[in-house]
Amino acid sequence: MKKVVTFGEIMLRLSTDRHLRFSQANNFTATYGGGEFNVAVSLANYGLEAEFVTRLPDNDLGRTALMEIKKRNVQANNVAIGGDRLGVYFLETGAGTRGSKVVYDRADSAMATIQPGTIDWEKVFKDTAVFHWSGVTPAVSQDAADVCLEAVKVASKMGVFITSDLNYRSKLWQYGKEPKDIMPELLSYSNVILGDLDTAFFMSGEPTVEPDYQKKETLPELYNKLFTLYPKLEKVATTLRYSISASHQQIGGILYDGKELFSAVVKDVTPVVDRVGSGDAFMGGLIYGLLNKEYTPQQAVDFAVAACCLKHTVSGDINLVTIEEVEKLMQGDASGKVAR
Amino acid sequence: MKKVVTFGEIMLRLSTDRHLRFSQANNFTATYGGGEFNVAVSLANYGLEAEFVTRLPDNDLGRTALMEIKKRNVQANNVAIGGDRLGVYFLETGAGTRGSKVVYDRADSAMATIQPGTIDWEKVFKDTAVFHWSGVTPAVSQDAADVCLEAVKVASKMGVFITSDLNYRSKLWQYGKEPKDIMPELLSYSNVILGDLDTAFFMSGEPTVEPDYQKKETLPELYNKLFTLYPKLEKVATTLRYSISASHQQIGGILYDGKELFSAVVKDVTPVVDRVGSGDAFMGGLIYGLLNKEYTPQQAVDFAVAACCLKHTVSGDINLVTIEEVEKLMQGDASGKVAR
Amino acid sequence: MKKVVTFGEIMLRLSTDRHLRFSQANNFTATYGGGEFNVAVSLANYGLEAEFVTRLPDNDLGRTALMEIKKRNVQANNVAIGGDRLGVYFLETGAGTRGSKVVYDRADSAMATIQPGTIDWEKVFKDTAVFHWSGVTPAVSQDAADVCLEAVKVASKMGVFITSDLNYRSKLWQYGKEPKDIMPELLSYSNVILGDLDTAFFMSGEPTVEPDYQKKETLPELYNKLFTLYPKLEKVATTLRYSISASHQQIGGILYDGKELFSAVVKDVTPVVDRVGSGDAFMGGLIYGLLNKEYTPQQAVDFAVAACCLKHTVSGDINLVTIEEVEKLMQGDASGKVAR
Amino acid sequence: MKKVVTFGEIMLRLSTDRHLRFSQANNFTATYGGGEFNVAVSLANYGLEAEFVTRLPDNDLGRTALMEIKKRNVQANNVAIGGDRLGVYFLETGAGTRGSKVVYDRADSAMATIQPGTIDWEKVFKDTAVFHWSGVTPAVSQDAADVCLEAVKVASKMGVFITSDLNYRSKLWQYGKEPKDIMPELLSYSNVILGDLDTAFFMSGEPTVEPDYQKKETLPELYNKLFTLYPKLEKVATTLRYSISASHQQIGGILYDGKELFSAVVKDVTPVVDRVGSGDAFMGGLIYGLLNKEYTPQQAVDFAVAACCLKHTVSGDINLVTIEEVEKLMQGDASGKVAR
Amino acid sequence: MKKVVTFGEIMLRLSTDRHLRFSQANNFTATYGGGEFNVAVSLANYGLEAEFVTRLPDNDLGRTALMEIKKRNVQANNVAIGGDRLGVYFLETGAGTRGSKVVYDRADSAMATIQPGTIDWEKVFKDTAVFHWSGVTPAVSQDAADVCLEAVKVASKMGVFITSDLNYRSKLWQYGKEPKDIMPELLSYSNVILGDLDTAFFMSGEPTVEPDYQKKETLPELYNKLFTLYPKLEKVATTLRYSISASHQQIGGILYDGKELFSAVVKDVTPVVDRVGSGDAFMGGLIYGLLNKEYTPQQAVDFAVAACCLKHTVSGDINLVTIEEVEKLMQGDASGKVAR
Amino acid sequence: MKKVVTFGEIMLRLSTDRHLRFSQANNFTATYGGGEFNVAVSLANYGLEAEFVTRLPDNDLGRTALMEIKKRNVQANNVAIGGDRLGVYFLETGAGTRGSKVVYDRADSAMATIQPGTIDWEKVFKDTAVFHWSGVTPAVSQDAADVCLEAVKVASKMGVFITSDLNYRSKLWQYGKEPKDIMPELLSYSNVILGDLDTAFFMSGEPTVEPDYQKKETLPELYNKLFTLYPKLEKVATTLRYSISASHQQIGGILYDGKELFSAVVKDVTPVVDRVGSGDAFMGGLIYGLLNKEYTPQQAVDFAVAACCLKHTVSGDINLVTIEEVEKLMQGDASGKVAR
Repeated sequence: MKKVVTFGEIMLRLSTDRHLRFSQANNFTATYGGGEFNVAVSLANYGLEAEFVTRLPDNDLGRTALMEIKKRNVQANNVAIGGDRLGVYFLETGAGTRGSKVVYDRADSAMATIQPGTIDWEKVFKDTAVFHWSGVTPAVSQDAADVCLEAVKVASKMGVFITSDLNYRSKLWQYGKEPKDIMPELLSYSNVILGDLDTAFFMSGEPTVEPDYQKKETLPELYNKLFTLYPKLEKVATTLRYSISASHQQIGGILYDGKELFSAVVKDVTPVVDRVGSGDAFMGGLIYGLLNKEYTPQQAVDFAVAACCLKHTVSGDINLVTIEEVEKLMQGDASGKVAR
Repeated sequence: MKKVVTFGEIMLRLSTDRHLRFSQANNFTATYGGGEFNVAVSLANYGLEAEFVTRLPDNDLGRTALMEIKKRNVQANNVAIGGDRLGVYFLETGAGTRGSKVVYDRADSAMATIQPGTIDWEKVFKDTAVFHWSGVTPAVSQDAADVCLEAVKVASKMGVFITSDLNYRSKLWQYGKEPKDIMPELLSYSNVILGDLDTAFFMSGEPTVEPDYQKKETLPELYNKLFTLYPKLEKVATTLRYSISASHQQIGGILYDGKELFSAVVKDVTPVVDRVGSGDAFMGGLIYGLLNKEYTPQQAVDFAVAACCLKHTVSGDINLVTIEEVEKLMQGDASGKVAR
Repeated sequence: MKKVVTFGEIMLRLSTDRHLRFSQANNFTATYGGGEFNVAVSLANYGLEAEFVTRLPDNDLGRTALMEIKKRNVQANNVAIGGDRLGVYFLETGAGTRGSKVVYDRADSAMATIQPGTIDWEKVFKDTAVFHWSGVTPAVSQDAADVCLEAVKVASKMGVFITSDLNYRSKLWQYGKEPKDIMPELLSYSNVILGDLDTAFFMSGEPTVEPDYQKKETLPELYNKLFTLYPKLEKVATTLRYSISASHQQIGGILYDGKELFSAVVKDVTPVVDRVGSGDAFMGGLIYGLLNKEYTPQQAVDFAVAACCLKHTVSGDINLVTIEEVEKLMQGDASGKVAR
Repeated sequence: MKKVVTFGEIMLRLSTDRHLRFSQANNFTATYGGGEFNVAVSLANYGLEAEFVTRLPDNDLGRTALMEIKKRNVQANNVAIGGDRLGVYFLETGAGTRGSKVVYDRADSAMATIQPGTIDWEKVFKDTAVFHWSGVTPAVSQDAADVCLEAVKVASKMGVFITSDLNYRSKLWQYGKEPKDIMPELLSYSNVILGDLDTAFFMSGEPTVEPDYQKKETLPELYNKLFTLYPKLEKVATTLRYSISASHQQIGGILYDGKELFSAVVKDVTPVVDRVGSGDAFMGGLIYGLLNKEYTPQQAVDFAVAACCLKHTVSGDINLVTIEEVEKLMQGDASGKVAR
Repeated sequence: MKKVVTFGEIMLRLSTDRHLRFSQANNFTATYGGGEFNVAVSLANYGLEAEFVTRLPDNDLGRTALMEIKKRNVQANNVAIGGDRLGVYFLETGAGTRGSKVVYDRADSAMATIQPGTIDWEKVFKDTAVFHWSGVTPAVSQDAADVCLEAVKVASKMGVFITSDLNYRSKLWQYGKEPKDIMPELLSYSNVILGDLDTAFFMSGEPTVEPDYQKKETLPELYNKLFTLYPKLEKVATTLRYSISASHQQIGGILYDGKELFSAVVKDVTPVVDRVGSGDAFMGGLIYGLLNKEYTPQQAVDFAVAACCLKHTVSGDINLVTIEEVEKLMQGDASGKVAR
Repeated sequence: MKKVVTFGEIMLRLSTDRHLRFSQANNFTATYGGGEFNVAVSLANYGLEAEFVTRLPDNDLGRTALMEIKKRNVQANNVAIGGDRLGVYFLETGAGTRGSKVVYDRADSAMATIQPGTIDWEKVFKDTAVFHWSGVTPAVSQDAADVCLEAVKVASKMGVFITSDLNYRSKLWQYGKEPKDIMPELLSYSNVILGDLDTAFFMSGEPTVEPDYQKKETLPELYNKLFTLYPKLEKVATTLRYSISASHQQIGGILYDGKELFSAVVKDVTPVVDRVGSGDAFMGGLIYGLLNKEYTPQQAVDFAVAACCLKHTVSGDINLVTIEEVEKLMQGDASGKVAR
């Protein structure tokens, strides 16, 4: 089967252990992650051929990030080398009524300073079935946005199926542009969009909407507007998240194909080991589900929700689970029995 | 008072910390445990004289296992030394919807290659009140099954009270025999059996049964069949476990003495720190409860359930709790207040 | 604004990690804490000028304790140096049905052997708005009780507002005096008392009462008796704690000003990362709330309850949270969302 | 350039930290390594294309080993999957006068039970410049020896240059054969052999020799005998190791090409962080040195010695150093200055 | 006594443990340090009043850095808050023949983007005896250089004694200026300079010199040239470092007062626990030595050398030693006996 | 063979890791040790039957200490339970020029408050060959000294061979007595004394001596005076220690039997992993050597020195080495080769 390509930033994540606050931490656990990389790892874990495209600095941290990509069975044949630093983010893991806290330190990273022309996208997309990008990349810098646009244009021209995660981060978008200046053109090439309806309208520069996900019958009208805005769009999905506390989440999901709306049963997630990357786990599950010819759309969204739930039990950004584990939960077995 | 003897394998357990998956683990926490050893530790903690019989290799891991036995105040006067390796098992601790995972690496262990005649059972059982074994031992190898049979025969002849935990592990029983070929003879010497009814019938080579533990009035008929099969049987017990998730269990228990059925109130266990060994904790609690002359049968099963619940809060295979702690929970105080 | 002064003992706390029992611990996490120090840190975190008065031994542990005071932005200008040892306490962190366990090793500490005249209280209380002490200090030794009395007398004379936490610890009070011999005189200088009603009556040498905190209308009568006993009293507060398990607490609170009773909504706290010091977090929140001129009494007790809840999510004795975090929870947002 | 292929076993290594003895260890650091894998990693680090061929079990430990191969930029396209277990070895790291201690637990590993025909050697050796194997593989089992012979025959037929490390381990060779029964045929295909002269004669079934490496002029006569025994032999090398203590080693090396003897200056290695794999580091350095067309034979052995020395400073089995680091030491700069 | 003020950057240092290479590190030990802060801590440890001036970002990392300053008893009354990020550096600790490695990630830090006028230097230098700065600060950015110049001008005008450490870092000075463009003016205010003679001439834009520190009689002529260049100069000092390996250093020192040359005996330092900050430890010791009126110049340089040696035994950037410890070593007792 | 009994205190030892100073430590490694316990463990490791007599508090720390005794195969049949606290000591491990540092916190421990009559010495010494005590015990309190005297009197009466280690600790002896008031009577029962000559004379209340251990011919005269003072004395031994640095020690030893002086070759010990307990390791080795009928006196002291050297490579107070390891070093093999 053809491969799936994702493009974005991979960062060094430095997290405190045992729910310690930053001022208590005498060491940080080091892992590597980033939205689009996380999606690639999910797909590699599900047995798909996956490639991650990014730019890494020529120093020990960049080289270690590259090793982590390879370790997770994700191809790295088109990773550009250059720039001054690897993006870093610091994570303080919350619990109960205290939320997790992120301190970003990713300005001027190798990825943020990538230049158009750096990546040979025609080479990248040879034998590619799907290209996935997210709204984090164009939020980082004009350069990154430009390269993202390069990518979707080539992908689209080469007939690659394009999936996008809106991934709005209000702390980013600091380079003088707003989402509405950048995202509509990028999204115009998308075949699948993942995101909340209000975010989708906001990033598209459309008037605000306040969807009520409990009233499912009201949703198609809103989703349909996105189909109007983005003519290549085939499917829209939304992750539903109800946050009881930092340690207790409820996760559901919706998939709409322009005609029918598929809604997954909301599942309880408690305790939360690590919720960072759970949206990416949903996205990875959704891509897998849509590519799996034996799945119905309902099964695709069910798989995405189950994958998202399981991610909350895995430390780090990436979702280290197997198809068997996701399907077991997707079929309703949340018992967590010991296999022995 | 006379001692309690248990016989079985003690393994090196290598577990990942903080719910890490195997592929994330850069170190493993090392502890030592095994079903029958775990029972012996429980009894030693409750103040009984307990001895553990096993076979350990003459290397540093075997010697360390021996030290752990002694540390926990369990006698080791009849531990045989020999064989090539200590059994090992790897444990990945789950959370929420993701179950724990065990990778056994115990083939050809010192215990699996024990030969009949290795242990001087008549010496072992001098001054012994109770002998306990479980279905894990005969599941490991024909040799281990043979030695187990040796043991129960001598114990029975010497008037030792015999308790058994069915402990069915589908991943074991790889040496060409099925439980029904081995267990009935072994169980024919038992005075107490712990196990699910369906497992008991399956291991006895009897037609399948599907007990409904909610309908308690239907259970005696099924339990009675076991009394028919095993004439020395005096009591049968079952641990009831409802697995809400890997982090949330509900534990109850039943004790039947051939006439009356005693059922303990189901207790919530959340969070689960470590559920491995909780069945052994039940067994240890049950033996203590049956030996305690001041307890009614109801109190015996209540004690077993409370001990089992507390085990879920203790890391490692063994149940490090005191009589006072178990009795406090058994009497309904689950408040977990700080003692200060 | 003028400063808040607290007086008491700071100890080295040695706690087991990952819920290990004492006999499993191969290392202890070292932090520093103590009731009145914890209150001072809370206030410093809320932006108040806070000073902690204590006595520390002239050895490496005493010096490290001093550094921890300074690190947390608490003034240490009147810390006495002397005595033989720093008080120590060992903590085993429970989970679920198993409560945490404390082994005190604080006898003959520098603080327990403090002598009257050691502290220049007139110097301490210059520019002081509030003086806070708790019932732990007079429980430690006659000397500590005497110095505490010295302090409240000078504070009172100098017009400092005095707050007290009853903090009854049955394992202390070993020096031949009972609370009723010591506390009434000390409390007679208090403007605010925090504590359960039954404890307040017990420590005051009054007949036992059994308040029913569910029936709020019955409480003022009981609280009023305290106002009679202690004429300087302006406000009494009580932390309400319902202990579902060691990992699940419910926290509420009451503030009574002699006329009106303010009751905070009970909040769920689960999981519990560390409950030691949560009472001090309530006290710190209450002092802040009472000093904050923009708060109503209702807001003061709401702030105290929210601060107490958040403390359960923070490792160690001290409550490392900001006003923003407390106010967010106080306003009902317990969602624990990631800030990014 | 064409690739280098190595074939052998990769094991899970479980080592105690901070020089702890086995009976003190409460956790083990987990890494993955094995002689021939270690060589492949060295070569990948020096920029060569390297592939490792082995057999791994289809369980979480086997999968993690595979990830480690990929992480280190070593190809794994011909790794066979099967067998019951991953080989394990336990390492206690010595210091000073106390040597390190290894407990092997590798019997019946996936590699030991590999069957002839499992690997498609003709596919493996396409585009291969060098094939490397060591005496550990035929020491494990007759099956492994048979597959090793398969490999060297195909390699030889396909014109691949063959290098061998004698790697004698007295604790292995337990399957009824002695080195002299197996090694001569295997070595008859070798172009380069690394090993002590006495080992080489012993494994070849020749009479014992006692070389004096201080008297270099006496060595060619002995080395020449090997050239007589193994007609394809082009070069022989020996690592010289003088063990002052577990923490202080002295390392030299010899390379003989049938005519000239090249001897590297002996270097001091102190302290020793981890000496396991230092022989493999020598081998990896030697292969790189021989393949590097800009190197003289003297430089090749100098590079090998420097690589071996540096390995002693790196934790784990594999030698994580760059060409620049090796060349710096090879040129005599042992100053260990901070690069900043 | 009046205080000593130092000005510079404090960074988060993230170091690998146990000599691990970056690509092996799964966590980083977090400490805080920076040349001029390190000097301030040394002085505070020796009982002087010390203040550190810097700029920190208004985030959790900046706040934690501030706490570390206070913990070490260094005043922080004039720390500016602002900027986007805290400077970070990654440290891989070498051993033996492998040197330590630093990856700087300090571009655009709060300190690098400090603006002239940010610090009220007249307020800072009230009651100040000594102002210390180093060549790292003007190397970071033009802004930092400008603020440094501001500082020395005010200090000089207010009669503060000025000490400087040349601290040349070739990886810095990236903003378009060379040391010779910046340093001469800054150094023209210095009363004491610490640095190698060749560095001093290079940074002053003078022709290269190659001092031979073994031939002490040749040195005054070279030092005298510095006195000519910098008329306020009273003393010049040089740390002598002979690097046998990353684990074995030899440390000496020279102090020249324009007339007489004082040379300390070279001491062996082995093993090296952490050499980062050892130059700052020398500087801190030198300032203390010069300020100590009971010391001769010989004792001052002896104290500086002993302090520098001891720093190599302390983890982290800062030198946590007492006067007693330094004087003991300064007097020749390197025995490292246990005090008990 | 008959057993060896030792009597003394076992403490909880809390040590910093990785050479951290106390003020840097966020956790402490917990082990258990004490001079006389350490000797008992050595003897158990050498295959002798060993029993340790002490007093432990009835709390979790006391119980854990008891488990450690049992784990190490030392009998604990006569351990008294009582008292308020377990003695604690804090250890900061030095390196190079910085010595280790001990903070004792053992006042009022269970052992210090032991009362005469607590131990049934006649029961203890049944079947006892050797009784060992050291000068630490009578240094702790008058009570401990009294019980020590009880012990030696009963031992002597029952014909038990008595060995003593002078073990002078200047920080102890705080209860109003000097060594000369207490030790002479205790030592009058000794058959073997281990200690420096100057300490022996000092503790005996004799005039100061300054032995020169390099001039061996001068020593018998001094040793002979001890034989005069203590008529039961059969052998005196001295550990020679030359402290190059905290990381480098040189160890020799002398044994004198009243006629002949046996001197062991001085051995280098570098690096030092942990030197605490190395004197006890010498004592343990000496007792073993003297009891081993196949050893000459020269071999006895050689064994003691080798055991002492090896202890420096083992973390914790106790010497975890085997006879084979000691004999290998005793025979001159310090190579620290890997056994594999």
